Amino acid sequence: MCQLLGMNANTPTDVTFSFTGFAQRAGNTADHTDGWGIAFFEGRGLRHFVDHERATDSPVAELIRRYPIKSRNVIAHIRKATQGVVSLENCHPFVRELWGRYWVFAHNGDLKDFRPRLHAHFHPVGTTDSEHVFCWLMQELSKSHAGMPSIEELTLTLRELAARIAPHGTFNFLLSNGQALWAHASTHLYYIERRHPFSQAQLCDEDLRVDFSAHTTPNDKVAVVVTAPLTSNEQWTAFQSGEMRVFVDGQCQAA
Amino acid sequence: MCQLLGMNANTPTDVTFSFTGFAQRAGNTADHTDGWGIAFFEGRGLRHFVDHERATDSPVAELIRRYPIKSRNVIAHIRKATQGVVSLENCHPFVRELWGRYWVFAHNGDLKDFRPRLHAHFHPVGTTDSEHVFCWLMQELSKSHAGMPSIEELTLTLRELAARIAPHGTFNFLLSNGQALWAHASTHLYYIERRHPFSQAQLCDEDLRVDFSAHTTPNDKVAVVVTAPLTSNEQWTAFQSGEMRVFVDGQCQAA
Repeated sequence: MCQLLGMNANTPTDVTFSFTGFAQRAGNTADHTDGWGIAFFEGRGLRHFVDHERATDSPVAELIRRYPIKSRNVIAHIRKATQGVVSLENCHPFVRELWGRYWVFAHNGDLKDFRPRLHAHFHPVGTTDSEHVFCWLMQELSKSHAGMPSIEELTLTLRELAARIAPHGTFNFLLSNGQALWAHASTHLYYIERRHPFSQAQLCDEDLRVDFSAHTTPNDKVAVVVTAPLTSNEQWTAFQSGEMRVFVDGQCQAA
Repeated sequence: MCQLLGMNANTPTDVTFSFTGFAQRAGNTADHTDGWGIAFFEGRGLRHFVDHERATDSPVAELIRRYPIKSRNVIAHIRKATQGVVSLENCHPFVRELWGRYWVFAHNGDLKDFRPRLHAHFHPVGTTDSEHVFCWLMQELSKSHAGMPSIEELTLTLRELAARIAPHGTFNFLLSNGQALWAHASTHLYYIERRHPFSQAQLCDEDLRVDFSAHTTPNDKVAVVVTAPLTSNEQWTAFQSGEMRVFVDGQCQAA
């Protein structure tokens, strides 16, 4: 299986602290060594980094740990291949354009016997079940709405689509269009909302501590979603199985 | 105006030497300071780096100069904004998926009064004429062929499409799907084919020399296409105005 990391914030925020702990799971504190990737929205624009080297060794991952790219929506993934060979085109997150916006998707899980027909214009480049289901999600969103709908409408449609996919296996995913972060859990997914007053946090996967109050303003709100809690001294909330949540401006929206 | 750099090779080859000289044009030897980008195919997979910082300062460009990513098809661009603000979503090259392949496009020029209707499923995320025309090219390719055609068929279609666009302004572009590199010139574009016996080359934009014979095998073939010659001691061939060439396996194909 793979691991997922997502961030949604109300102000451009760097993810270096979380990513540093997360990347340790690519061989040091866990065995997710079959590639990794991360995507940062900057407004409508996107920086997308993928690598089939493990995140603990990759020079690109080293850049991400050192270079504080500020973003309001980030999705990262470290891969342990279940379907599809180890190759660049099979690294998550995947990107497509729909309605003049980039969409970014990463999946943790395994979908058995779910290869829905792709009869429209989104097709996988690689060979994973994950990219196939992302293309199907894009196809069905595109069929359901003539143009970009509101976040609320998108959430309703995504809930229906996720419920059709989830019975086929394990379907933990993160999805963002740069405005919101959608997160769906089948098995393991946790989130935290950080806001004023900010405190110190201690990584689980590496001996590193940060004092968020030194790097934030009282207005900042940041939500982080991850496969397993990243810090040892904060309260993370577990998703229920089958639950989808949407994060906007650093806050989980009412269901 | 902007500058273009493309590479097509028959074996995975790094572009660090060419990119090092090229990146100097982002503020040192020329004034293309409004962002930059580079895309490397690895098989069907793609590494895509864009940055609105100038390439001489960008930490990501520094990574690309130091980290020899090997690829058979590369497209790079440094931007001097003519249309569209300086922002990440307006940095070239642009990427879209068609027929289960990534397509990468970069443009140097300016198209006046050419905003053809986008009635299908490719839409610009940013505000440049360049991304608009790329979406139109993808739309028209998609309409012309039901599935991925041969390189020869694609070249015929692209020639027709380019001839419809070129009268509207300056239209130098590079396009690749990871199998071939298409290059079209309105004004300035040069190419070189390097093969056995390889020799030394001296950059124009920086005091740097490389001995290709030390880094190659006798079977290697590498073609480089660029807005202005990168080296001072090699013979570069100028494109004619209105000419489109296609490079496969490091060689320019017969017209």
